[in-house]
Amino acid sequence: MNPITPVILCGGSGTRLWPRSRKIKPKPFLPLVGDSTLFEATIARCPLSAGFAPPLVVTGTAHLGHVEEQLGAGEARIIVEPEAKNTAAAIALAALRLPEDTVMLVCPSDHHIGDVAAFQAAAREAAGLAAQGWLVAFGISPSAPETGFGYVKRGAAIEGTGGWQVESFVEKPDLERAMQFLADGGYSWNGGIFAFRAGTFLQELAAYRPAIAAAVRKAVEAGREDGRRFHPDAAAFAAVESESVDYAVMESTSRAAMVPAAMAWSDIGNWQALHEALPHDAAGNSTKGRVELRDCANVLVETDGPRVSVIGARNLIVVVDGDEVLVCTHEGAQQVGKLSGAANQ
Amino acid sequence: MNPITPVILCGGSGTRLWPRSRKIKPKPFLPLVGDSTLFEATIARCPLSAGFAPPLVVTGTAHLGHVEEQLGAGEARIIVEPEAKNTAAAIALAALRLPEDTVMLVCPSDHHIGDVAAFQAAAREAAGLAAQGWLVAFGISPSAPETGFGYVKRGAAIEGTGGWQVESFVEKPDLERAMQFLADGGYSWNGGIFAFRAGTFLQELAAYRPAIAAAVRKAVEAGREDGRRFHPDAAAFAAVESESVDYAVMESTSRAAMVPAAMAWSDIGNWQALHEALPHDAAGNSTKGRVELRDCANVLVETDGPRVSVIGARNLIVVVDGDEVLVCTHEGAQQVGKLSGAANQ
Repeated sequence: MNPITPVILCGGSGTRLWPRSRKIKPKPFLPLVGDSTLFEATIARCPLSAGFAPPLVVTGTAHLGHVEEQLGAGEARIIVEPEAKNTAAAIALAALRLPEDTVMLVCPSDHHIGDVAAFQAAAREAAGLAAQGWLVAFGISPSAPETGFGYVKRGAAIEGTGGWQVESFVEKPDLERAMQFLADGGYSWNGGIFAFRAGTFLQELAAYRPAIAAAVRKAVEAGREDGRRFHPDAAAFAAVESESVDYAVMESTSRAAMVPAAMAWSDIGNWQALHEALPHDAAGNSTKGRVELRDCANVLVETDGPRVSVIGARNLIVVVDGDEVLVCTHEGAQQVGKLSGAANQ
Repeated sequence: MNPITPVILCGGSGTRLWPRSRKIKPKPFLPLVGDSTLFEATIARCPLSAGFAPPLVVTGTAHLGHVEEQLGAGEARIIVEPEAKNTAAAIALAALRLPEDTVMLVCPSDHHIGDVAAFQAAAREAAGLAAQGWLVAFGISPSAPETGFGYVKRGAAIEGTGGWQVESFVEKPDLERAMQFLADGGYSWNGGIFAFRAGTFLQELAAYRPAIAAAVRKAVEAGREDGRRFHPDAAAFAAVESESVDYAVMESTSRAAMVPAAMAWSDIGNWQALHEALPHDAAGNSTKGRVELRDCANVLVETDGPRVSVIGARNLIVVVDGDEVLVCTHEGAQQVGKLSGAANQ
């Protein structure tokens, strides 16, 4: 099989891991789990030795400095989006810059994957299906009735492979439905990881979103190269409609497939999710920096400077970052983005 | 009635309000409740206009700078203890520097009293009894079955006064006994506020602790004046035994009396106690500094700099002070002194 080209999407920074993640130092570029940043780990999961080609990174000017610094030397290439236009356009940019037979593996750059071998096995499975013309979503084995994710409902097995046809993509459910999905067993999380043959993706995009396909093509044709960077034409790209790949293509195409992936995945979507992805002590506590705990359980404490002393807390998150201190319960972690500190950066 | 001389005791700093209270800026000299420090408020509660004489402050060299700064100009006098020898010796120093007919009102400098009029009324009642030769403790109306205080059990009423003889002083009880005390109704908290005629106190001290009485007298006789300061002789004072006035005198004397005092008193003995003494919003929250709360109840948050954002917390205390951050539950507040930050200042 030809090498798989990782297409790494480095989009918006988000506010849900504020104050650690801020506009000027967004989530993908922080060492949230272990010593590598999420971006570095995303690149490292797709080495040449495991059958990957050098990656193609799609990012905006705001993140370009971080991307180039953390990418280091190497054959990676970068597409610099003039502005953010969601994932359908970002993936189309990449597809247009690759030979049409290339199998692309689209990966968000701000997720954590604990089991790299499982990821690579799923990537190979997905790439095989993509090479046959399927548009393949990773179906992440759900470990809880999450209401913050979309779900993929599998249909018929695709003979001779480990993949399945997709019966439907399901919007974020309420808790009751999410619990039904888990009980049913045929549902998995849609983690935003996809494998496509570049040409197939562009065909399907042209079929279901011809305006997006045409506008992105125009932006690429009028674009310019600058070393390993490629700059799509800003004026042309400004006309592209913002839409997610899920809406624009995956929910419409008749060639949607999924491969199951049990790989200790987390989108690190908020502080509680980060806490779950981090190593814990026997009491469920996880600390970084100068921290003293007494009689605490299931507590995450991170500080970049001042000492933090915590007594008697349960299910609590404490983050000290520069001039901001965040204290929230696990349940409250969903609301971090609504804080004025997070909203008015 | 002659004016009452407030004897203000400024002793050890304690560790239970760390990190706000530290060795270099101890509890009495901090504006913990309102804009005045506890020491300033203690002085202000005893104005000339309410029948008090200028105060006599007993403190150590470590606190002398704070005392003089916060005392300002005026007729207050200061006794500078060469070292801390607990309250029996501190009160004896003051008694020996006053005419024997003087009525002294001994006040700790690190308590909060919400109802100043009630305090002054109790002080007048106590002073009247002291002038008759009683050794009078304030019996603070208990609002909860506290296990952190000693209790005063009242005996017979003293005819023609609002006072009572003391049947006994009771050590800090366990919770069960404390609840019995509250149900009984005859018990009050011993808050360490006393009224004595100076000569009576010295007589009783000489009767029950002749060694302390003699050693303190020697230290005063060999002491020296320096403006409004008086320095007892250090070598003589070094020989004084450390003992509390409760043990040394009150539990032994047959002339112990008490006056009931319902005056919204708090010893601000830990962060939970401070929280209770502070004004709250309808949800029981109290904040100082740049604080944002979402969905919080019964939370105290104080910061001297960084913004603190708190989500979803209940019964929690968060204190940011310089290079230290403290997060503790109300239940955990008792353990603050055991933190390495508090213990190793």
